[in-house]
Formats: sequence, structure tokens, C-alpha cells
Amino acid sequence: MKRALVLFAHGARAASWAAPFERLRDLTHARLPEVEVRLAFLELMEPRLPETVAALVAGGARELTIVPVFLGQGGHLLRDLPLLAEGLRAAHPGLQLTVAGAVGEDPGVLAAMTDYCVRSLG
Amino acid sequence: MKRALVLFAHGARAASWAAPFERLRDLTHARLPEVEVRLAFLELMEPRLPETVAALVAGGARELTIVPVFLGQGGHLLRDLPLLAEGLRAAHPGLQLTVAGAVGEDPGVLAAMTDYCVRSLG
Repeated sequence: MKRALVLFAHGARAASWAAPFERLRDLTHARLPEVEVRLAFLELMEPRLPETVAALVAGGARELTIVPVFLGQGGHLLRDLPLLAEGLRAAHPGLQLTVAGAVGEDPGVLAAMTDYCVRSLG
Repeated sequence: MKRALVLFAHGARAASWAAPFERLRDLTHARLPEVEVRLAFLELMEPRLPETVAALVAGGARELTIVPVFLGQGGHLLRDLPLLAEGLRAAHPGLQLTVAGAVGEDPGVLAAMTDYCVRSLG
């Protein structure tokens, strides 16, 4: 195993909050069976990003992509994630780390959300 | 104008956070030109849900659907939004109010997010 994908989500107190992120992880892994796909949280839920990345690197990951499963670019993506990524690069100098843009800013995701909003009106 | 759609989002301190929600509102309104489509926030950003709904009702809205633009069902959707909806029903007894499920739990949105995650790996 050399490549890994980490879906990075906010976290919440309610356990029910994780369900769609777990489905997203499973759906993504089904499309990329040769890639380790993990879910990691910023706060309130485990596992957190640093431990997740450390475990993947210990398992042999050399290329790792973080996808922020956030709707918009707020303080968590503008400040918290860059600091976390800086810490990961310092802790794992041999790792090729890529941070993708927020899921919610993807045109395909926006189009699917638009479809959902239109359908919600009945 | 009788029907209205309110996209209900969390809000954030960073102004940049609102951009994808504003695009979602505009894309949805383009598909539903006869419907008033508004964006309202739970916290940190204006306008808030009660003022938005009051303005729509004052403008003649009689059927109103709230779509939570949230990825998962955390405390905001499990507790805050039901309380807000209860307050709206009490304040506007003639209004037919519907609350949809979270955008992030829609299978079409999950599929689009999966596509994005797969593409992010390059």
C-alpha cells in the first residue's frame, strides 16, 4: 500500500452525524479498492487527522491526499487545516501530501445539491 | 408569490464561507424562477432563519420549504432546527412549512461527493 486518501470532516457530538461521511468513505473505497481510504475528524469525534496520517504512514503510505468534506471555506479550512498540514509535513518528511479543495465547492457536487433543492420543493 | 424555498446553512466568521451557498441559491433559483429562493443562517452570518421567513410571509409566501444545507445530522439539525421550526409554526400559523432532510444525506449528493473524492486522487 502506497497511496492513501483521507476524508477530513468536522465532527460533532451526535454520533448520527458521522453516517453520511462513513457512507462516503465506503463508496469511495469501493471505487478505489487499491487505495486506503480513511475518515478523520477535526474535532469532537475520533480519529483525528494526525493519528490517522501517522497510522497510514506507518502502514507504508507514501502519497496521501486529504479531501476536506466541508461545504465552504471557513476558518477550519483557511486556518486549521493548513496548520495541521504543516504539522504533518514536518512529522512525515518522506510523505507526498496533497490537500484538495472543499467538497462543497466542486461544480458536480453543487449541481447535485441543486437537484436536491429543486426536488425538495415537490 | 406563494411558494418559497429557504436554504438553511450554518454560517461562519469568514465571509468566503458563504460563496458556495450563494452559488447554490442562484443555481436553484435559475431552475425555479417562479419560487422565492433565499439563503438563511443558523449563526455567525446574516440573515437568520426567523427574519428570512417573516419577510417571505410578509411578501405573501404561503408554502415554505426549508432545505438544511448541512452534510450530516448533528445537534444543529437534531435540536436547533426543530426548535426554530416550532417557533416559525407558532409565529406564522397560516404557513405550510416543510423541513427537508440534510443535503449531505441525499444519494445523488453522496454520489457526486464520491466522484469528487475519486478525482481528487488524480
